[in-house]
Amino acid sequence: MSASQRGSSQSAPWWQRPGLGYQRSHLTVAGHSLEALAARHGTPLYVYDLGRVVANLQRLRQALAELGTPHRVFYALKSNRHPDVLAALRQAGIHGLDTCSPGEVDLARGAGFAANRISFTGTSLSDRDLDRLLKHPDLILNCDSIHDLERVAERAPGHRVGLRINPGLGIGYRRNRMLRYAGGSGTKFGLHREQFTTALRIARRRGLVVEGLHFHTGCGFLTPQLPVLDKIFRACRWFVDQLPALRYLNVGGGLGIPLVPEDAALDLTAWTALLRRHWAGAATEIWSEPGDYLVKDAGVLVLEANTVETKGTTRYVGVNGGFSVHPEPAFYDLPLWPVSCRAPQPRGRLETVTIAGNINEALDILHADARLPRLANGDLLAFLNAGGYGAAMASNHCLRGDFTEIAVPPAAR
Amino acid sequence: MSASQRGSSQSAPWWQRPGLGYQRSHLTVAGHSLEALAARHGTPLYVYDLGRVVANLQRLRQALAELGTPHRVFYALKSNRHPDVLAALRQAGIHGLDTCSPGEVDLARGAGFAANRISFTGTSLSDRDLDRLLKHPDLILNCDSIHDLERVAERAPGHRVGLRINPGLGIGYRRNRMLRYAGGSGTKFGLHREQFTTALRIARRRGLVVEGLHFHTGCGFLTPQLPVLDKIFRACRWFVDQLPALRYLNVGGGLGIPLVPEDAALDLTAWTALLRRHWAGAATEIWSEPGDYLVKDAGVLVLEANTVETKGTTRYVGVNGGFSVHPEPAFYDLPLWPVSCRAPQPRGRLETVTIAGNINEALDILHADARLPRLANGDLLAFLNAGGYGAAMASNHCLRGDFTEIAVPPAAR
Repeated sequence: MSASQRGSSQSAPWWQRPGLGYQRSHLTVAGHSLEALAARHGTPLYVYDLGRVVANLQRLRQALAELGTPHRVFYALKSNRHPDVLAALRQAGIHGLDTCSPGEVDLARGAGFAANRISFTGTSLSDRDLDRLLKHPDLILNCDSIHDLERVAERAPGHRVGLRINPGLGIGYRRNRMLRYAGGSGTKFGLHREQFTTALRIARRRGLVVEGLHFHTGCGFLTPQLPVLDKIFRACRWFVDQLPALRYLNVGGGLGIPLVPEDAALDLTAWTALLRRHWAGAATEIWSEPGDYLVKDAGVLVLEANTVETKGTTRYVGVNGGFSVHPEPAFYDLPLWPVSCRAPQPRGRLETVTIAGNINEALDILHADARLPRLANGDLLAFLNAGGYGAAMASNHCLRGDFTEIAVPPAAR
Repeated sequence: MSASQRGSSQSAPWWQRPGLGYQRSHLTVAGHSLEALAARHGTPLYVYDLGRVVANLQRLRQALAELGTPHRVFYALKSNRHPDVLAALRQAGIHGLDTCSPGEVDLARGAGFAANRISFTGTSLSDRDLDRLLKHPDLILNCDSIHDLERVAERAPGHRVGLRINPGLGIGYRRNRMLRYAGGSGTKFGLHREQFTTALRIARRRGLVVEGLHFHTGCGFLTPQLPVLDKIFRACRWFVDQLPALRYLNVGGGLGIPLVPEDAALDLTAWTALLRRHWAGAATEIWSEPGDYLVKDAGVLVLEANTVETKGTTRYVGVNGGFSVHPEPAFYDLPLWPVSCRAPQPRGRLETVTIAGNINEALDILHADARLPRLANGDLLAFLNAGGYGAAMASNHCLRGDFTEIAVPPAAR
């Protein structure tokens, strides 16, 4: 790990990367000053760096090229459904989109993806949901329950389906206490081992073709969590062994990115090696469906400081947005990283501040104990890694739901 | 506490009340069958019982009549901003609305409340927020910080203001680990004791008239928490003593309602006695600003069961809504109480089930370990106590944000 990754060097902050950094004292995204963008568009402002989205996709594909098995990348639409993000991914040749509601399937079709490029993996589906989904006969449909299987068989005899399996183990971003995406007897997702034989029997009897398996393995994992992923894959093996002629094995998403200086980037080579070791030859194609990995570090949220004041022992910086605009810090305990939009003085003093949102609830804290240069009313802060599960989850609580989203193309050279 | 309150008697469930119960096997709200309403309007469906909203207000007023000091009730708009709810409260003669954003002030004006009937207590206010607020010179404006005070003085010399104070203590619904509404060095709200003398000096020097004090004391408190409220009020005393000629003392809201059978209704007489003991004569008027207390138990959310299946050791009931429609169970650990819309058979078997929402996240569980009659695809469930912080906080996550809200008038007799 280099010094800049560790965040110890003031000249190169840990989060700096091509397309994100200070230029002549101004924080820029793809060459655009965030202060200039905020002056034009107002705040709260989401800025998505399309060049970064595409670079993330290319890095992932390059790693997957080492798999030895053909691979497909689907983007999990729910993390960010901005039309420019979808268009950039399509132009960059992403194979398809992963969806989880009929509305998302319609949106994916509208964004130019053919139904056979759309994977669906939802939960708690109603009859109406299934009716809407089956209007797209080529949709790649993963069944989450035996009940889904039965209803698909009723409506579309002979349909090709995938099965979502629940290996009974999961993995989450290490700092997070609420995200237990897969596994455990406690999760609602997929077919458990005890159900699987029944599911296959029903599929056979009802003439459904099981062409794929899908497993969600977790979310936000980084290199230190790969041994857990290894264990999860071992638990999935039993399921995969039942189906020797799979068209696809969808290993889910969940690839994490560094959210704090102590996080190192996920070692994609190690991840691919794990995939290869477990799944080479297990299916005709290996599929992956990252969401955050493609978009999270490509988005920043710009907010304006307003109230800077010490209360008790805490120095607060109030800003003009809160969990209505981005819910992850308050509700998921997932940090956004605050950065001043104006470069700190080379040897300037930093303050420890807690950044408070403008929602009238005590839990609306965007970041506790941030180290930032002295801020005043009107100064702009950029919250990094805001590109996923931000705008897509926004609410209008307290009628504080106004914000603007813009996407910027790669900087000209 | 009666048997029906404890929920032990099958013939009278603990949550039954005038306007809510089974009639000829159908769960009804104000005489309307929820199954009939769902057939007409579809689900997810919020049903607000306006008669119950008004009854809650009347009960509160009746208790406050014992105060001995004139009182005013403001409704905290952020918990539910449905226009029919606001109209019902206005027609029932509520004094005013409590707001926390400029957008809410505009909405309150649009709902027919004069500015001098609108109390504003927000946080992290921008200059633009203050400019918008001060366009209503009669708005009752509580300042949350010294910085707010200074900016009001700049813009509106001689303005009347209230001060929000932070007594350093708070109280929350006993089962909740995230709501710490007031107090502690950890909350962003109001003026702490160390700041208060400065605040009063600034107000005096800048010609502002401090006419009121406001303290948020917590949220969701019931009778067993009243001793904590007593302590909080004692901590507030020091602030109140500095201002002998207050027009109003706003003691906040936070009055809770029973969410589970073990909860007993808040003893309003004991609450009023506490107010009287601490605050009789402390100001010309005592104000309170409940949100949930007026609307939460007046609202039910009707969802349709779809996927009923045992996975691992858990029996799941999937429903056609999730935290995008009502966030409190997933994000605040605050229970909604699930009830079958069709009366259980008198001696019918109950099952223990976990109700799973249709959002593709493991935390989207609406209720764990509910005891319900055997359910099947298409059966309707009503989630009680859904009238506050439900629709008002909804998102469109996973494009699962569609729902309908209707308000029903009291049943004709």
